[in-house]
Amino acid sequence: MFKKRENVVEIEEGNFLSPKFDNDGLIPVITMCHKTKEILMHGYMNTEALKKTIENKEAYYFSRSRKTIWHKGKTSGFIQKVIEIKIDDDQDSLCLIVDIGDGASCHVGYRSCFYRTIPLGPIDNARQVKMKFTETEKKFDPEKVYKDQPNPTKI
Amino acid sequence: MFKKRENVVEIEEGNFLSPKFDNDGLIPVITMCHKTKEILMHGYMNTEALKKTIENKEAYYFSRSRKTIWHKGKTSGFIQKVIEIKIDDDQDSLCLIVDIGDGASCHVGYRSCFYRTIPLGPIDNARQVKMKFTETEKKFDPEKVYKDQPNPTKI
Repeated sequence: MFKKRENVVEIEEGNFLSPKFDNDGLIPVITMCHKTKEILMHGYMNTEALKKTIENKEAYYFSRSRKTIWHKGKTSGFIQKVIEIKIDDDQDSLCLIVDIGDGASCHVGYRSCFYRTIPLGPIDNARQVKMKFTETEKKFDPEKVYKDQPNPTKI
Repeated sequence: MFKKRENVVEIEEGNFLSPKFDNDGLIPVITMCHKTKEILMHGYMNTEALKKTIENKEAYYFSRSRKTIWHKGKTSGFIQKVIEIKIDDDQDSLCLIVDIGDGASCHVGYRSCFYRTIPLGPIDNARQVKMKFTETEKKFDPEKVYKDQPNPTKI
């Protein structure tokens, strides 16, 4: 189903899908809300997750912490309906445009995983960089939704 | 300048910047146009690129193919003025909101690197997946702009 990556012109200017998976068999994925244009999350897919996503029109990812395919929203109910999938010039990253309705996409409970902003300007190396929250209210309580499931965040 | 990653609650719910760099010292970066909300590119930063981006308010990346820090737009003139930098829940990916004016961000010549869309629905494994171009006109001629510089796309 994927064209073999053989030359740069075909990869960049061709019509055939030739995704580049990294040494772990993964390709990074940017996920955007089709309505608000918020970046919801950054994840990874392997071949199987990409195939399932294309065919089922719902987002599947590969969880690096759990080392398994993951149907987004299966536990929380916040399924991501896929409106469009784009690929970049050298075909080593994907962009999903999805519909999550009024739902959420972040396991911490926020709508977007990107709920903190880094201040710009000179850095004082002696001090830690303090961020601001751009979302302050959670859309759901992760303890109620995920119960005893391990937190995917790794130190 | 970065807080040590010590516990999950601090990483997810804290105010201090504790980015997670991978085994190659890199963190993935999503870059979005602040005006059109297009996803322009997907790149990587190392510590130095992140620090320069925060301080100079212009995007610096780490080129994996050239193995060097890269001031975006230095050759093409298409500097990315940084409006905002966000970080995700587990602090292992960044999102840059940038101003590129009427410029471009793709080394192939398009405005966005994501100029092709993958059709959704059942896949015929015997056939290659044929994509559609969503951008058809280039913003610049890469041969004129980059001249003899090697193409960063790798097979």
